Amino acid sequence: MTNSQPSPLRLGIAGLGTVGVGVIKIVRQKANLLAARTGRPIEITAVSARSKDKDRGVSLAGYAWEEDPVALAKRDDVDVFVELMGGENGPAKDAIEAALALGKDVVTANKALLAHHGQALAETAEDKGAVIRFEAAVAGGIPVIKALTEGLAGNEITRVMGVMNGTCNYILTRMQDAGLPYDEVFAEADALGYLEADPNLDVGGIDAGHKLSLLSAIAFGTQVDFDGVELEGIQRISIEDIHQAAELGYKIKLLGVTQMTGRGLEQRMSPCLVPAESPLGQLTGGTNMVVIEGDAVEQVVLRGPGAGEGPTASAVMGDVCDIARGLRLSTFGVPAKALVTAKAARSNSPAPYYLRLALQDRPGAMAKIATALGDNGISIDRMRQTRHAEAHAPVLIVTHKTQRADLDAAIEAMRATGVMAADPVALRIEQI
Amino acid sequence: MTNSQPSPLRLGIAGLGTVGVGVIKIVRQKANLLAARTGRPIEITAVSARSKDKDRGVSLAGYAWEEDPVALAKRDDVDVFVELMGGENGPAKDAIEAALALGKDVVTANKALLAHHGQALAETAEDKGAVIRFEAAVAGGIPVIKALTEGLAGNEITRVMGVMNGTCNYILTRMQDAGLPYDEVFAEADALGYLEADPNLDVGGIDAGHKLSLLSAIAFGTQVDFDGVELEGIQRISIEDIHQAAELGYKIKLLGVTQMTGRGLEQRMSPCLVPAESPLGQLTGGTNMVVIEGDAVEQVVLRGPGAGEGPTASAVMGDVCDIARGLRLSTFGVPAKALVTAKAARSNSPAPYYLRLALQDRPGAMAKIATALGDNGISIDRMRQTRHAEAHAPVLIVTHKTQRADLDAAIEAMRATGVMAADPVALRIEQI
Repeated sequence: MTNSQPSPLRLGIAGLGTVGVGVIKIVRQKANLLAARTGRPIEITAVSARSKDKDRGVSLAGYAWEEDPVALAKRDDVDVFVELMGGENGPAKDAIEAALALGKDVVTANKALLAHHGQALAETAEDKGAVIRFEAAVAGGIPVIKALTEGLAGNEITRVMGVMNGTCNYILTRMQDAGLPYDEVFAEADALGYLEADPNLDVGGIDAGHKLSLLSAIAFGTQVDFDGVELEGIQRISIEDIHQAAELGYKIKLLGVTQMTGRGLEQRMSPCLVPAESPLGQLTGGTNMVVIEGDAVEQVVLRGPGAGEGPTASAVMGDVCDIARGLRLSTFGVPAKALVTAKAARSNSPAPYYLRLALQDRPGAMAKIATALGDNGISIDRMRQTRHAEAHAPVLIVTHKTQRADLDAAIEAMRATGVMAADPVALRIEQI
Repeated sequence: MTNSQPSPLRLGIAGLGTVGVGVIKIVRQKANLLAARTGRPIEITAVSARSKDKDRGVSLAGYAWEEDPVALAKRDDVDVFVELMGGENGPAKDAIEAALALGKDVVTANKALLAHHGQALAETAEDKGAVIRFEAAVAGGIPVIKALTEGLAGNEITRVMGVMNGTCNYILTRMQDAGLPYDEVFAEADALGYLEADPNLDVGGIDAGHKLSLLSAIAFGTQVDFDGVELEGIQRISIEDIHQAAELGYKIKLLGVTQMTGRGLEQRMSPCLVPAESPLGQLTGGTNMVVIEGDAVEQVVLRGPGAGEGPTASAVMGDVCDIARGLRLSTFGVPAKALVTAKAARSNSPAPYYLRLALQDRPGAMAKIATALGDNGISIDRMRQTRHAEAHAPVLIVTHKTQRADLDAAIEAMRATGVMAADPVALRIEQI
């Protein structure tokens, strides 16, 4: 397939939610621009969705309708199967497999599917000479997959970090700005339709963890290992934590970090304190940011909208245009069979930690906590017990740099003292 | 050329300065990684530079040596001509033309050459079935050409902005941090080797203007029009301006903006005040930032090192890897013959302006200035005359939003009053 070939590239789109509609709009409104840029017309020939008659604000006239996405994927008049249904199993997977089996290229926004089945799908695609592109699966409109796979291909990637779940960032930002507790903002986000059907995908860090696992595969040439991601959600972040972090000069972000170490691949997605004035700290609402570090390029930072009709459709169309232009690339940047098995390592690089404890209000409680820390080699940078009406004394501790394993041991020791009124909140402080 | 073809991609590198050495290091140290990523070995077969014997910290053993870059470009064992000499004419141009004439692909970091001859070179390349890639020509290690040309290909680009000259940003940052006057920091930068042989290329905004003109061509499908860039350098920025801007909550950056308007293509590169806490305001030293706005993606911001051995070599290698992977792309994203002639428009979107004046110290001077502004419909937001020992009164004015044409008329009127002791400094205030 070369630029000189004038045959149209024919898309079949499965899933006509926000993103699918955005793709239809772009293909329709920018036909000339897309043809000029890619050297061939880009057309939609067939679509599929749960309901045919729903008013989506765009006409489906001229597109064949399929009830079954698998049937859509198999159509002779579909060159590229665009999967925008979501879901880690079920019809999305069946339809992508059907498309690949026929050697058709696939463009998808489905991080859950790729996080769980990326290796098998990539191998199938490469066996069949097809490509799978998934720019829209990570960080919305930010062309981060492209930057990592192509633009920075001359680098040994050393670390990738990012805030990649807009819903979590919305919740954390809104708690701070409005001074509202987690539950209330969660309910707001739900009412606004910001949450996945299973909200734990968002607030449990799973969605962001899916994304991180895909970036890891490209960055380090490892098979996608979602199970290797240390996951921690934002459900236990209280308005008190937000306020305390702010007083210390930090903001709380659900931050993903992946790096290859001598001990193996460290992947973690967890709420962290980042300096309020840093680029990450300044992120608000649904904006995403990804930081890529490579041995040659040093550090590149990409920021943009993490979701939404236009931004996500932009990412889908970037992939479609690449296919129209004849770019053929392995799914994760190297042939799937060359991806090595990742050895998951628990992250243990030292960092200061923020600890919020609730102690029984009795003599010696604080001493026991301090001893638990000291016994595990953790020294205290700042400690504060605030005035309290409740029966439990809220205690805030900022540690000096420590390894997570030592902190976990200290927390275990604290629990054993019997003075803890609730499980502590422990958040890593990242100086980035 | 497909991924399955195992023949090596053979590079000929002309120019062995910092970047050329960086490319040699990557090709040599990452041979396996590059082959895994691109599906074929990448080799250097021949090199060329001004001096063969200079110690560059890398061995040239195994590479054929050519005195003449044109001879290098023509060698049968060179598939891709990598031009890292620089210069808008002369040997760089001759050698690139020689490579293209033989249908060889070209990777270059030469913004001056492309800003002046990009259209002709792109047409030649496309006639010959060759590609010209130039990621390293704009914003160093940031893969911005790729993001704009490929990742955001589904967008109608509405505006591109950026800080793209590390030397200017270094000078402005250093003036602020050390409280040193322009001349002194300029001399420092010169001593550090940060300046081009003709320093006006940097401090006159020409280099950054070259880069902006290339981004404009891709963004708007127009022929490169460097002459259409409104250029203003940083030479007249005084330490006083830096201090005043800081007091107002701003930093001064050499900022490029390009946008297509109903009146034509606006391209300007000029020192502007940007909010100190904004991402642009927080840029320090040689870091570059490019902001891309598209109708679908809204806004994507890319930040990274604007120069240096590793980052620039990373950009060169991104292009080389694309070629090795078989990506064939028009130089400016659409076929060169489809690029339309840009109609240059002087930017006239209203903005507040920062004005620094030096007035004759006599009665009525200030009134005349105020009248000149009022007569041209410009209202004053803030005005301050500072205490002074000198004969000339330093006056600082921040206007409400006005068009540049009105401001220029007001400045003309001020000059006619005879109370101006020096030409005013007028800087646009950008709220971004």
